[in-house]
Amino acid sequence: MKALVFDGTLKLLDVPLPVRWPGTSLVKVNLAGICNTDLEITRGYMDYHGILGHELLGTVIESDSAILSGKRVTTEINIPCKTCDLCKQGLLKHCRNIKTVGISDYPGVFAEYAVLPDENLHVIPESVSSLKAVFTEPLAAAAQVFESVELSPDQRVCLIGDGKLGLLISMALSAKKIEHRLVGKHSQRIGLLGSSSGALFLSIDEAESYDRHFDIVIEATGNSSGLAQALRLVRPQGKIVLKSTYQGIPSFDVTSVVVREIELIGSRCGPFDKAISMLEEGTVDPTTLIENIFHIDESLKAFEAAKKSLKVIIRMD
Amino acid sequence: MKALVFDGTLKLLDVPLPVRWPGTSLVKVNLAGICNTDLEITRGYMDYHGILGHELLGTVIESDSAILSGKRVTTEINIPCKTCDLCKQGLLKHCRNIKTVGISDYPGVFAEYAVLPDENLHVIPESVSSLKAVFTEPLAAAAQVFESVELSPDQRVCLIGDGKLGLLISMALSAKKIEHRLVGKHSQRIGLLGSSSGALFLSIDEAESYDRHFDIVIEATGNSSGLAQALRLVRPQGKIVLKSTYQGIPSFDVTSVVVREIELIGSRCGPFDKAISMLEEGTVDPTTLIENIFHIDESLKAFEAAKKSLKVIIRMD
Repeated sequence: MKALVFDGTLKLLDVPLPVRWPGTSLVKVNLAGICNTDLEITRGYMDYHGILGHELLGTVIESDSAILSGKRVTTEINIPCKTCDLCKQGLLKHCRNIKTVGISDYPGVFAEYAVLPDENLHVIPESVSSLKAVFTEPLAAAAQVFESVELSPDQRVCLIGDGKLGLLISMALSAKKIEHRLVGKHSQRIGLLGSSSGALFLSIDEAESYDRHFDIVIEATGNSSGLAQALRLVRPQGKIVLKSTYQGIPSFDVTSVVVREIELIGSRCGPFDKAISMLEEGTVDPTTLIENIFHIDESLKAFEAAKKSLKVIIRMD
Repeated sequence: MKALVFDGTLKLLDVPLPVRWPGTSLVKVNLAGICNTDLEITRGYMDYHGILGHELLGTVIESDSAILSGKRVTTEINIPCKTCDLCKQGLLKHCRNIKTVGISDYPGVFAEYAVLPDENLHVIPESVSSLKAVFTEPLAAAAQVFESVELSPDQRVCLIGDGKLGLLISMALSAKKIEHRLVGKHSQRIGLLGSSSGALFLSIDEAESYDRHFDIVIEATGNSSGLAQALRLVRPQGKIVLKSTYQGIPSFDVTSVVVREIELIGSRCGPFDKAISMLEEGTVDPTTLIENIFHIDESLKAFEAAKKSLKVIIRMD
């Protein structure tokens, strides 16, 4: 089968069809989304070599599970060992021996087929289009903000970052009727958020006048200047939700966290069921973020396009 | 009166007696503790010039308040404007125009007399000795951990730092029956914590085997290696309480905060009433931390001693 492999360089290769074992399903990949993590891996992140990709919409073509057989599915990306002390405490997604689809120690979904653990798969309701469903994983990560911090409509909420993740978080906030300021570099992207969006755009310069103003700041830029801005915008005893990872070890004004008694909350992968519900209810439409769809034969081009676009999707058919 | 002044260099000077105005009391200083913040100010921190000192035990000798007159008191250090937006939100200790006794824009207590706002003063119960009472401010800061995070006896708690602040936090934890590991450089200091201490000592090397182990880690070292160790010791989805400020802007692995979904909680000044209660109940005896008491005439020596000791006290009589 065709597969997009990173082994130091990115290559479209012909590789053997993966072999299913008990407890897993063979999935025909239909669509797969390119995530910033994929781009980072091609720059050395996680030291991962193998088939890339973890945002999936596929069809189960072989499975022991009657619930899964023949269904459209997406996949959770974390595969825990279930035996380490952290797993036994229920911290499965933080397993000491974790494998992560297309990121660490487990083949990804930029391929015609993938074998995935049954318990990682979620069936997509018929009413949800495949193009929407391929956003389940990043939308779940966006929806994790609700698990990380209590959000209510009377709070002053600010979201920093108008990239893919920032925009998905903005959509998730609006779906829950949370009005918020969206600090970004591209005011025109507010148009991607739909007419019922609760976001008001602020340029980075405009945001400077909101010193210590917001109860909650969600940081989704992935760079240290976004982090520094979050510290300026949050009020004393306020909360900053950190949604993105950072290249290297950024310098960071920890003293102001102490002096202002700020709470910093790391927030990562999220609840697939809630993301699927949002898509089913139609409160979120992430397909506005799609800038390009490439066939897997053109997946090297797709990666180049993804470096300067919002969402790029790879299709297998 | 005699006063210890920092104006670029530290000097014992003869300065005019301060003048009381309505709403303030004239306090004869009896004892004053030297804090690391005082040492940092003499290295340029806060750009403060004036009389140093903020840990007070004094006697009110002139006041409009019948409750205060003649009483032994200690003082809260923050003097808010009460008119800015943050004050109006109730965030008084985070006032935009804050003055802080002996730290920022308000004269300190390393002097024979001080004029202090009545509402900053707390009367010390008769049963509490003056030497204990002079610890009220730092003990309140230690007790702030209980405001910052929910602590219960079934949690795995680790405290990093066996300096003055770390040992006071350890005493406060033990007073609330919270068993904890104390990570430090001086195993003999465990002897200062009293026979009913709930602390078990770990050397920095021994602590390395507790990777991602603790539910709650309290960081009280004030250096970036303590911060890095806190990140290694806390379990995923665990909490780190930051009790100390840091010189400069330390580098700091923010990505691991995100990936492990850690919560970082800044924690600063604390509740004086609770600190005084602890002293009154006798559940905490901080006087074991006193290494030296100097008369104000020898306060320059006291500062030199404080650089290499636990608590150094300045007495005025």
